[in-house]
Amino acid sequence: MEIIKINGREYTIEEYNRYFYGRVRSVMDKYRVKGNIAVALSGGKDSAVMLHVLSKFDLNLCPFYINIGIPEYSKKCMEYAIKAASHYGYEIEIINLADYGIDINYAKKKCSVCGTVRRYLMNKFAFENECDYVATGHNLSDTVTFALNNMINVNTMNMRGAKPVMEGNKDIKMVARLKPLYWLRDDEIAIYAEINSISYCKDICPYAKHAPTLVIKEWIHELEKRMNGSMINLAKSFSKIEDMMDRTEPRTCDICGYPSYGRICKFCKLRREHEKIQRDSGKNKE
Amino acid sequence: MEIIKINGREYTIEEYNRYFYGRVRSVMDKYRVKGNIAVALSGGKDSAVMLHVLSKFDLNLCPFYINIGIPEYSKKCMEYAIKAASHYGYEIEIINLADYGIDINYAKKKCSVCGTVRRYLMNKFAFENECDYVATGHNLSDTVTFALNNMINVNTMNMRGAKPVMEGNKDIKMVARLKPLYWLRDDEIAIYAEINSISYCKDICPYAKHAPTLVIKEWIHELEKRMNGSMINLAKSFSKIEDMMDRTEPRTCDICGYPSYGRICKFCKLRREHEKIQRDSGKNKE
Repeated sequence: MEIIKINGREYTIEEYNRYFYGRVRSVMDKYRVKGNIAVALSGGKDSAVMLHVLSKFDLNLCPFYINIGIPEYSKKCMEYAIKAASHYGYEIEIINLADYGIDINYAKKKCSVCGTVRRYLMNKFAFENECDYVATGHNLSDTVTFALNNMINVNTMNMRGAKPVMEGNKDIKMVARLKPLYWLRDDEIAIYAEINSISYCKDICPYAKHAPTLVIKEWIHELEKRMNGSMINLAKSFSKIEDMMDRTEPRTCDICGYPSYGRICKFCKLRREHEKIQRDSGKNKE
Repeated sequence: MEIIKINGREYTIEEYNRYFYGRVRSVMDKYRVKGNIAVALSGGKDSAVMLHVLSKFDLNLCPFYINIGIPEYSKKCMEYAIKAASHYGYEIEIINLADYGIDINYAKKKCSVCGTVRRYLMNKFAFENECDYVATGHNLSDTVTFALNNMINVNTMNMRGAKPVMEGNKDIKMVARLKPLYWLRDDEIAIYAEINSISYCKDICPYAKHAPTLVIKEWIHELEKRMNGSMINLAKSFSKIEDMMDRTEPRTCDICGYPSYGRICKFCKLRREHEKIQRDSGKNKE
C-alpha cells in the first residue's frame, strides 16, 4: 500500500483523495455552488485536476479552452485540454484569441496581456452560455503568490480576488468566479494528479520562464515547509484585508458592454492597439 | 581602504556611513522631528546604533533603560545601555519593572507581556519627562517581520505601527513614536555598528530563543537576497494597508489615565494579575 507523506502526516491513497476532495467540497458547500459551470481548461495541471474533481459533483460543466496563440505551446496545451474534456465525455469549446485581432506575440507585457484577455474571454464565454460560475484552476499557491507579489510591487489597489468565490453581477454582464482548488497548494495538486493518473501538459509557458512570481512562489513554499499552515493563514489574512478595503465597483465598457473599471475596457483597448499594429505593419509592406 | 559589499553595491566606509545617515535623515526630515526625544536603550545593536546616529542631530536626547528583570540577561543589557549613554555624555534613567509589582519570570506569555510593559513604560517615561517623541530601535526587518507574522497568525486587526512615525495625542497622554532606523535592515545596522566600533550586548533573550518570528525574519531576508528592495516595498505596502483600515482610537485607562483600548489598560490588568500571584504564593507559604 502506497503511503503519501505530506503536511507532517501520512496518508493512504484513499485518505489523501478524501482529504483533497474535502478541501474542494468546503468551497462548494460554503458558497452553495450549483448550476452551470464554465470550466476554464488550460491544458495544465491545475485545471486538469479541477475538472477531475468537479466531475464528481452534481453540476452541469461547460469546459472551454482559450487559444492564446503562442507558437507550439498553445497547440500542445490545447491537445491536452481536448483530451481531458473528452475523457469525461464533455465537448470542449475552443476560443481563439486570433479571432479578436490580438496577437500576444507582438505584445510588450505578454503576461499582463495574457491575464487580461483570459479574464475577459472566460467571462464572455460564461455569460453567453448562461453559466452561473466560471471556474478556474487557481490554487492556494497562486493566491498567496499573487497577493504577496502585489505587495512587493507596492500595488495594494490590485488586491481583489483573494477569495474562493467572487460574486457576479448580471447587470454588468459579470459572471461569478469560482476557484475550487483555492485551499490546495501546488504540491498537493501535483500529488493528486499523480495518484489519480491525470495527464496534463508539463511545459512551462516560454514567455513566463523567468517571471518574478516564480521566485516568490518558491519562497512562499519555503516558509510553508518550516511553518505548516502558513499559506492558508496568509490567504485568510489577504481575504480579510480585501474586506476592509474600499472597492471601486466596475461599470460596463462603452464598446463591448462587458465589465470595465474605465469607460473602455482593457480588452477593447488591446484590440485597438493591435489593429493599429497591423495597419502599421501593412503600411510598411506597401 | 575597506570596501563594504551590500545591496548589490560597493561602498567605502565613508560612503556607507553617508548612505546610512541619509536613510535616517529621510525619516527625520519627512516628519520634521525636533525637540525632546526619549531614547529607549535596550543594550542591543539597534538602540545602540540609533543613539549613535541621533546624537548627530540637533535634538535633546533623554535615554532610558527598562529593566525587565530577566536574571543575568537584563543586568548585562543594562550595563551596555549605561555605557552607551555615558559614552555620549548622557545620564540614563533606569526604570525597574519590579517597582510595579510585575515579575516577567512568572508570566506565561513572556514575549507578549514584555511588549506590553515596554510600550507602557516608555510612553509613561516620555510623557512624564515632557518629551515630544519616544524613539525606539525598530528597524525594517522588525517592521516587515511583525506585519507578516500578524498575517501568518490571521491577526489583521493588530497591524498598527507600520510607519516610521506614529502621531501622539496629549489628551490621552500618548507620546508620538519615532523609529529612526525604519528604512534599514538588520544586516545594514550590524555593518554600521561594526565599522563605527559601536559596542552592544550580543546575547539573545533566553525567553525569545525559539520565537517563531526568528524563522519569519530569516525567511524575509532570503527574499531580499533574491529580490533587492523587496523589504522596503513590503513595508510601504503595509503602511498603505494601515491607511486603508478602520482604526479604533484609544481612550484612557480608568485606573492609570494612560492610553487604553478598553476600560482598563493591559498594563494595569497585568499588575492586578501579578498582585494575585504574589498574594497566592504568600498564602502558600503561610
